[in-house]
Amino acid sequence: MSLSPPAQPGQSFAEIDTPALILDLDAFERNLVAMAAFTQAHGVRLRPHAKTHKSPQIALLQIAHGAVGQCCQKVSEAEVLVNGGVGDVLVTNEIVGPGKLDRLAKLARNARIGLCVDHPEGVREAAEAAARHDVILDILVELDVGGRRCGVAPGEAVRIAEMVARSNTLRFSGLQAYHGSAQHMRSIDERREAVERAGLLARTAADKLAHAGLGCEIISGAGTGTHELESQSGIWNEIQAGSYIFMDADYARNRQADGTPFRTFEHSLFVLTSVMSKPVPDRAVVDAGHKAAAIDSGLPTPWQRDGVVYTKPSDEHGVLTGDPIALPHRGDKVLLVPGHCDPTVNLHDWYVCVRGLNSPDAHVETLWPVAGRGALT
Amino acid sequence: MSLSPPAQPGQSFAEIDTPALILDLDAFERNLVAMAAFTQAHGVRLRPHAKTHKSPQIALLQIAHGAVGQCCQKVSEAEVLVNGGVGDVLVTNEIVGPGKLDRLAKLARNARIGLCVDHPEGVREAAEAAARHDVILDILVELDVGGRRCGVAPGEAVRIAEMVARSNTLRFSGLQAYHGSAQHMRSIDERREAVERAGLLARTAADKLAHAGLGCEIISGAGTGTHELESQSGIWNEIQAGSYIFMDADYARNRQADGTPFRTFEHSLFVLTSVMSKPVPDRAVVDAGHKAAAIDSGLPTPWQRDGVVYTKPSDEHGVLTGDPIALPHRGDKVLLVPGHCDPTVNLHDWYVCVRGLNSPDAHVETLWPVAGRGALT
Repeated sequence: MSLSPPAQPGQSFAEIDTPALILDLDAFERNLVAMAAFTQAHGVRLRPHAKTHKSPQIALLQIAHGAVGQCCQKVSEAEVLVNGGVGDVLVTNEIVGPGKLDRLAKLARNARIGLCVDHPEGVREAAEAAARHDVILDILVELDVGGRRCGVAPGEAVRIAEMVARSNTLRFSGLQAYHGSAQHMRSIDERREAVERAGLLARTAADKLAHAGLGCEIISGAGTGTHELESQSGIWNEIQAGSYIFMDADYARNRQADGTPFRTFEHSLFVLTSVMSKPVPDRAVVDAGHKAAAIDSGLPTPWQRDGVVYTKPSDEHGVLTGDPIALPHRGDKVLLVPGHCDPTVNLHDWYVCVRGLNSPDAHVETLWPVAGRGALT
Repeated sequence: MSLSPPAQPGQSFAEIDTPALILDLDAFERNLVAMAAFTQAHGVRLRPHAKTHKSPQIALLQIAHGAVGQCCQKVSEAEVLVNGGVGDVLVTNEIVGPGKLDRLAKLARNARIGLCVDHPEGVREAAEAAARHDVILDILVELDVGGRRCGVAPGEAVRIAEMVARSNTLRFSGLQAYHGSAQHMRSIDERREAVERAGLLARTAADKLAHAGLGCEIISGAGTGTHELESQSGIWNEIQAGSYIFMDADYARNRQADGTPFRTFEHSLFVLTSVMSKPVPDRAVVDAGHKAAAIDSGLPTPWQRDGVVYTKPSDEHGVLTGDPIALPHRGDKVLLVPGHCDPTVNLHDWYVCVRGLNSPDAHVETLWPVAGRGALT
């Protein structure tokens, strides 16, 4: 059996069952437009990350606003995107083993498909999979630009790029230069320094590639927290931001140059929860816990509820505490801003897309499936 | 589209794609038998918690081993269980609002259904829903026995129980007396003290109920961490443990009476992950991050990999560090013991059920769907 969604199109906001993942369509659309305008003004390509939304509907809206395609992290996410009509997908990740690479190569019959490598074996395996399926795969060589996760140093990147360039079934497209941990550094100075260091490495690699006679068409990277810096650097020419469409409580803790909170984008993603128990006046227990909102980047925060704090999450509960006057009552509904949007989305099957969220006419305009939820392989 | 599972029955262990949720059937079956034997020996009813497994297959195996039924936390979980053939389900939670209560009452046409209340309005709403659907709902009044989440004090519990007893469509069954936070207290002394305090409250409430002329058939509670204490107390007569079938890294940090780690049950649940990048000798990056293993009760721990530690999880990555000699190589697979089993299971669509996990013949015996994954409402 499949689970029934928490709402139906046409219902009023008050009729939405809880917990539910709410998308404020008005704020979401403003975010779409703002990032499209910014990247167009700075002459950089926008390739938004689908690891955030896992939704072909959202991917196609981003592409309609000028995005060149999508990023994702998993082969199964790429399958969801291509099956949903996306024609250009970059897996910003290393893919190991013939099983996954065969699936990726099959997708390349119907879409432009790229992936990252950071090891000579990765080049060989990708080339063989492409040959088996008679396709060409785009390859970005991943640099470690400070995140100390995947990726190699510039010299090794050139050696791997040369292997790619020698293959008949791979196309060397450029460099993956994404600095994940820089996204969440709180001050603009910290983020700027991290992106400058990353840029030095990317430029060094590009220079070495040129010296080796290899063109570097794309330098791809950046997230929502640093996209302005990479876009203005003259080094990166493709931006992989994902969270900008939703925002979350963690990104809201970043500071802009003037020290004020990061406000380039609006909160459009919420978890709607109900008070299921209020046994004492200073404790309202809600029906959203770990299975409704991820906590890896901090707890969710109540939206437009001054004096109320979400605490003590357990699997299916959270506890609102704070000013007893401000606490909601049994049966009341509360919007939570997730601490981290990506893994929160991955807990839900449906976006309940609301129009006019802050108006008396707030209603469910449509439901979008989180089609790539659970796309792990 | 639905996502393809990471394995097929009959495949060898080596053929399982990653990340995958692995169930070691041999250890799982020993856990099933051990808890059934313990509760039978102590004369208490076992009503295991399906919030852990979300699987009718596992529920029916528990019932075949003598369990009286299942617990769950959500109406949608109860729907999955009843539709999967479970005839007796207790929702160990307060259910607010006519929409959810109507769904629960409909289930009571085909199964025995109970729920918890901790507010007079909850009694009224449940009674009305039962009347609308011409069914009887079992009611446990929830005591706050120390968790400071839902539930009331003994005096208020009696007042609510009297309201239940006056209803024509509700049956007062007893008390919900579950102490969640006691499960994870590390020393037996802490757990014993917490359970003793909870027991005093439960006995007080039962005495007050008797004084009011109300029989208290069931006192239900206990989890995997404290089930021995409640079973031996003479107070509780129904045990709600869930995690015992799987264990997890957090429960393994509990200590037994002799100070040694909690070993009553075996680890049977794992996340299988692959090394996708090994850019330097002391860092192996694996393909399981926040979307494959929950971290609310600590990070996953590598299984039977001395000297190797899982660190720095991000959405789709984890980093293994430690002794470079012990670190796995690119393409190698590693089993992780989840920090917390329940929310980890909820990230996966399938149990890949392996027979002979530690033998050369390790193979996929069957796949069980995590049918209640995402059952939030």
